[in-house]
Amino acid sequence: MGIGLSERQESDELPRGVARRSSIDPLVVMDVMREANVRAAEGADIIHMEVGQPGTPAPRAARERARAALETDRLGYTDALGLPALRERIARYYGERYDVGVAPERVVVTSGSSAGFVLAFLAVLDAGDTMLLPSPGYPCYRHILKALGAKPVLIDTSPAARWMPDARDLERFAGEEPAGLLLASPNNPTGTMAVGPRLGELADVCRRRRLWLISDEIYHGLEYDEPAVTAIAHWQAAIVVNSFSKYFSMTGWRIGWLVVPEALVRTIERLAQNLYISPPTISQVAALGAFDGIDELEEIKAGYAANRALLLSELPAAGLASILPADGAFYLYADVSALTSDSAAFAKTMLKEIGVAVTPGIDFDPVRGRHFIRFSYAEPQAAVREAARRIKGWLKP
Amino acid sequence: MGIGLSERQESDELPRGVARRSSIDPLVVMDVMREANVRAAEGADIIHMEVGQPGTPAPRAARERARAALETDRLGYTDALGLPALRERIARYYGERYDVGVAPERVVVTSGSSAGFVLAFLAVLDAGDTMLLPSPGYPCYRHILKALGAKPVLIDTSPAARWMPDARDLERFAGEEPAGLLLASPNNPTGTMAVGPRLGELADVCRRRRLWLISDEIYHGLEYDEPAVTAIAHWQAAIVVNSFSKYFSMTGWRIGWLVVPEALVRTIERLAQNLYISPPTISQVAALGAFDGIDELEEIKAGYAANRALLLSELPAAGLASILPADGAFYLYADVSALTSDSAAFAKTMLKEIGVAVTPGIDFDPVRGRHFIRFSYAEPQAAVREAARRIKGWLKP
Repeated sequence: MGIGLSERQESDELPRGVARRSSIDPLVVMDVMREANVRAAEGADIIHMEVGQPGTPAPRAARERARAALETDRLGYTDALGLPALRERIARYYGERYDVGVAPERVVVTSGSSAGFVLAFLAVLDAGDTMLLPSPGYPCYRHILKALGAKPVLIDTSPAARWMPDARDLERFAGEEPAGLLLASPNNPTGTMAVGPRLGELADVCRRRRLWLISDEIYHGLEYDEPAVTAIAHWQAAIVVNSFSKYFSMTGWRIGWLVVPEALVRTIERLAQNLYISPPTISQVAALGAFDGIDELEEIKAGYAANRALLLSELPAAGLASILPADGAFYLYADVSALTSDSAAFAKTMLKEIGVAVTPGIDFDPVRGRHFIRFSYAEPQAAVREAARRIKGWLKP
Repeated sequence: MGIGLSERQESDELPRGVARRSSIDPLVVMDVMREANVRAAEGADIIHMEVGQPGTPAPRAARERARAALETDRLGYTDALGLPALRERIARYYGERYDVGVAPERVVVTSGSSAGFVLAFLAVLDAGDTMLLPSPGYPCYRHILKALGAKPVLIDTSPAARWMPDARDLERFAGEEPAGLLLASPNNPTGTMAVGPRLGELADVCRRRRLWLISDEIYHGLEYDEPAVTAIAHWQAAIVVNSFSKYFSMTGWRIGWLVVPEALVRTIERLAQNLYISPPTISQVAALGAFDGIDELEEIKAGYAANRALLLSELPAAGLASILPADGAFYLYADVSALTSDSAAFAKTMLKEIGVAVTPGIDFDPVRGRHFIRFSYAEPQAAVREAARRIKGWLKP
């Protein structure tokens, strides 16, 4: 009869096609990181400049809190909005850092900024709604929006404008009837900021045009000149996304937060209850401790500043001259159009030939990104120096 | 001019309405838990029988691994699909527990089963697609589906059928053109299982009708009679959702897994990269250790069995006679129609008057749930005994 065989074959297939909305692009940097990890596991000497994460663990005070909790705490679910003590501590941070008052009730602890974006998008965008995204930008914005049925519309920015949109850019897209603007300052991958009055001007346009303003402030704390200003200093109705991943050096802990207008809290809470239950408890406890590790974090930041200075002198010497000195974050976005029009292949070859992993620009800008690569300089200085040496030897042998 | 005042007023409002899809129901159990936590913080002596979580921390071996990682590991991002060692260990568990072969490549580590559901739904359901859900069931299924634009269709089940659907139930809903069936066995809130040939029959219907079968196996390991069988023992194309929260006693760690058909892995990976980056690293490390804590977990399970026996004798003595002896999990779903037709008010009064928190049935079945409440019996036996005593005194003074 052969039934067994035919049943096995049938059962190897999917019962039906996958969802159309699941056909989003990969997060290229994660694919590069996996490839780099595979090579490292095979014995290659890999330097990670692809993934945007500190080379340091969480600050000691955070790890101490986590260790204590392992002994004494059941580490069960917390409230969906997070531990009350952590919400209060984050609210207080807005006074300390920005001199802006935020009620703890407006703070939502999230499972990383990833959850922050999903929650914010679901709360304010229906399927078909348009969100304006400056490009180049963090790729997950457009991929998450697409998976959730919303429509990302890219605003091409330019190095001359520090890769930031301005009020006129927003006016140009009025015909798209956008529901909102998502802005990151400092920006990923460029590290540039909406300096001076720019952020306030953009907030004003959003307020006037009744657009949601989602402000990705994940690189706040990592500025090398002008300090970043939170969007809620300009407009209390802005939705702020932040995280302990970058300045607080806690990527793998998956812990972040939102600040949302009071009228949005219950909407976000219902979504968070159902989609996440609650953020990881040990990470919440550790995050509370991280606020006691500011001295350590400022030392780490000084290391980034030194890496940045090193690369801004060494990469041009290697022939990569077209880099805008980044205002913040730990990224440099280099124009490699003189060398390639296929940044993915270029990055692949670099990883293979000299063991330096970088992220191709196509992750951040599907079109113009073919001519760019992003360097993350959050690893120890010796590694960054060695990477610069290898790149110089490779490009200018 | 008064501009300052008028601007402030405007800025206190939302720029536009919230998304229609965000108007999902709350997860009632989380609201009850928050209320119970507030009362406890005010000094009330609260017994938690509302939330479905073990009264125990993660097994010692898991906590030891986490502690060691705090000392030695940077705890950065992992691969989006999870640590390779953990994926391998979970795959091996399918051999040990079910005698079923699963390739590690098919295992996806997730941020709790919550992420597992979101990933599975986005991978296989487009907006407008219908998913069949036995009712009563875990409320987040229908709420997540609604937030993602899919259409949950409830199949009312009955105590006589152990609250499980059968093949005929599925045939009855063919007119809805469902894309799939989501089945949980043991089920939440009833603790009942698809015993005997039932699971295999349902898998056969799904295969024949080309429906996705999503099998929520989060309560596997917690059976008191017949052991649970994984859906992939019947059909390799089933999508299995599981978690370390229940049997492994690690709720707040937010760590779970999927087993998916090989042809679905890359789809899930792209979604996971973009929506989650990676699951919490310390939780992944701890989960690896949890597999060395099986003896401890079996002891915890023996405690549940004792609690179950206690409640099955004490609750009827208190007048709550209509409970189906649950096959697994740590829940009893009690018919309280003789006492109330408003289970939410009933639960609220119980919390207020005797400090016993339970979950109203409306969380699990919006209509018939008005006549039911769910008891979770995962707390220490002394607490469960005290709760039974209070309930008896309250209902039969």
